[in-house]
Parts: sequence; C-alpha cells; structure tokens
Amino acid sequence: MTKFMDVHHGMEGITADQLHQAHQADLAIESAENVHFESAWADPESGTVYCLSEAPSADAVQRVHERAGHKADEIHAVPLSV
Amino acid sequence: MTKFMDVHHGMEGITADQLHQAHQADLAIESAENVHFESAWADPESGTVYCLSEAPSADAVQRVHERAGHKADEIHAVPLSV
Repeated sequence: MTKFMDVHHGMEGITADQLHQAHQADLAIESAENVHFESAWADPESGTVYCLSEAPSADAVQRVHERAGHKADEIHAVPLSV
Repeated sequence: MTKFMDVHHGMEGITADQLHQAHQADLAIESAENVHFESAWADPESGTVYCLSEAPSADAVQRVHERAGHKADEIHAVPLSV
C-alpha cells in the first residue's frame, strides 16, 4: 500500500457540503478496490481539490473516483511524507 | 488562520532525508510568520512536493519557504477539508 495525492481541477465554487458528499461517495465504495481516502482539501476559488489516500495503485484510486462520479485530473504516488 | 496547500515542482529524486531536512528548515523559522507547516508529501518520480500548512496568508507561507531556500510554485488556500 502506498499513499497517493490526487488533484481535481475545475471545482470552482465547491461548497463544504459538496466536498463532504463527494468524500462520502468515495468512502462508500472504496473497499471494493482496497483504497482508503484519508482526507481531502478544497480551494473553491481556483477550483482545486486535493485528496490523500492509501491504495494499492493509482489505477485503483482512479477507479473509485470514476465510479463515484469525479475522475481525478492527476494522481501522484507520494511514498515520502513528514 | 487558514489552511494552505502549496506545491513544489522540479524535485525529482528527492529522498526521505531531504524532505525531512526541508520540513525541519521550515519548522525552525515558521513562527516568525505565524505559520505552521503540518505535513508534507513527496513524489520523487514526478518531482512534486505538497505541503499543508496553517497560516495567516499565502504570502506568509511563501516567505517561510523562500527563507528556508525552497520557494513554492503554487499556493492555494484550502478553507474546506474533510
């Protein structure tokens, strides 16, 4: 398992409720891919959302996001953290 | 105080030690700007580093990073999180 940071663009105006609902949609289906979405942070002004997950692969992260209706624009393995 | 996510590019090959040292360099001087760097995640392959902080402004985040010798390429306020 590796940590991944994925990034969504084009989310201008996202609200706290929308972020919460999107995260819940991921959590509801993530176990099928052995993924866990730990946290997400949103900048409504630039429309950027960052999601931190633990997963077996970037493809697994993307499959969960796609099925939940919000495909990521970038996914980076982040094996190093402090 | 607001949370900020900042991004550094061009860090290909960064090691765990280098990430740790860079983070320590931020922590050593952050209080002068009333900033706190909470976490950082690095992808040595694409050379991308993400830093999560709590700060009074994006400019304050950048001043700490600049004085520590690693200016950020992007800084986003992330007022929403889950």
